[in-house]
Amino acid sequence: MPQERLSVELEKSYRLLNHGPTVLVSSAHGGRQNVMAAAWSMPLDFSPPKVTVVIDRNTLTRELVEASGEFVLNVPTREQARLTLDVGSKSGRESDKFSEMGIATLPGGIVAAPLVEGCLGWLECRVIPEPHVQQRYDLFIGEIVAAWADPRGFKNGHWVFQEGGPRSIHYVAGGNFFETGAAFEIDRET
Amino acid sequence: MPQERLSVELEKSYRLLNHGPTVLVSSAHGGRQNVMAAAWSMPLDFSPPKVTVVIDRNTLTRELVEASGEFVLNVPTREQARLTLDVGSKSGRESDKFSEMGIATLPGGIVAAPLVEGCLGWLECRVIPEPHVQQRYDLFIGEIVAAWADPRGFKNGHWVFQEGGPRSIHYVAGGNFFETGAAFEIDRET
Repeated sequence: MPQERLSVELEKSYRLLNHGPTVLVSSAHGGRQNVMAAAWSMPLDFSPPKVTVVIDRNTLTRELVEASGEFVLNVPTREQARLTLDVGSKSGRESDKFSEMGIATLPGGIVAAPLVEGCLGWLECRVIPEPHVQQRYDLFIGEIVAAWADPRGFKNGHWVFQEGGPRSIHYVAGGNFFETGAAFEIDRET
Repeated sequence: MPQERLSVELEKSYRLLNHGPTVLVSSAHGGRQNVMAAAWSMPLDFSPPKVTVVIDRNTLTRELVEASGEFVLNVPTREQARLTLDVGSKSGRESDKFSEMGIATLPGGIVAAPLVEGCLGWLECRVIPEPHVQQRYDLFIGEIVAAWADPRGFKNGHWVFQEGGPRSIHYVAGGNFFETGAAFEIDRET
């Protein structure tokens, strides 16, 4: 049975990224596809929703993103932490990571880049060309053109992590991660 | 007794931000100072270490950062979540948030912007001028020129959160946060 996913309103799509999870960046162009890990991504604007992500100039992902003008930010779960480390350590130039690592995908709604199955959320993005910062800092700006979430993790515009259920992850360095921890709310009015 | 803080090696300073915590941005210029919250910041490079942060064009922080060419990213604790929300909801144009909210500060080592006391880490940054992305996206790029951490949270280049001890936070929306959760390690070799 394919993974359930619901469309996320574009104006709330930044919330999939606002708490700073590590993401997978998937891309496709000309019959090739790839996926890498990125701890360095963040929302950039609410409306139209935009993101930034750092994509090293030596990666296959960089080549595919520049050629296609598209990418997907996938929000992986703790169960996908090893996958996150693995796709971040190997180059897609050497082999197709999807087939080598048995990574299943879902089709995007708008972009050609695949969505990584098992993730909690997906942001389909179109590159807003900014050649200077791309060249100088490996920094890419994208507009979110479609967003999806697994209702086990994100529903009606809110994260809904359950005890023991899937949750997002935050990479530090050297194979060390944090899980996203306990939710809490500060009442603005008191 | 002033808060203990240890110098963080510049090459490891990105680790204070790599897991995507929400930060406080402090700034100072010409006798004025300010502090705001920013969920939208991330590392941009390892060496020399750089960060990006979104600073809205309507804020006093923007004015002070543009005038001084400096800012500090402070990593607050859960105990500072209300403060984070408060400094993110009020404008420094109306009153000095430090005196109004009773925010104690520590001096920076290099920049004039103050460090917010009680935080877990501090990144002193100098703006790398990129007028186009500043104007178009409110996006600022900074080079980390000094970094500090409270050894209760970060020591010898690593986060060392203890059960019941202070930890960093991740903002979502509408007063809703996550704590940084359980640490775990994936062995790269197996």
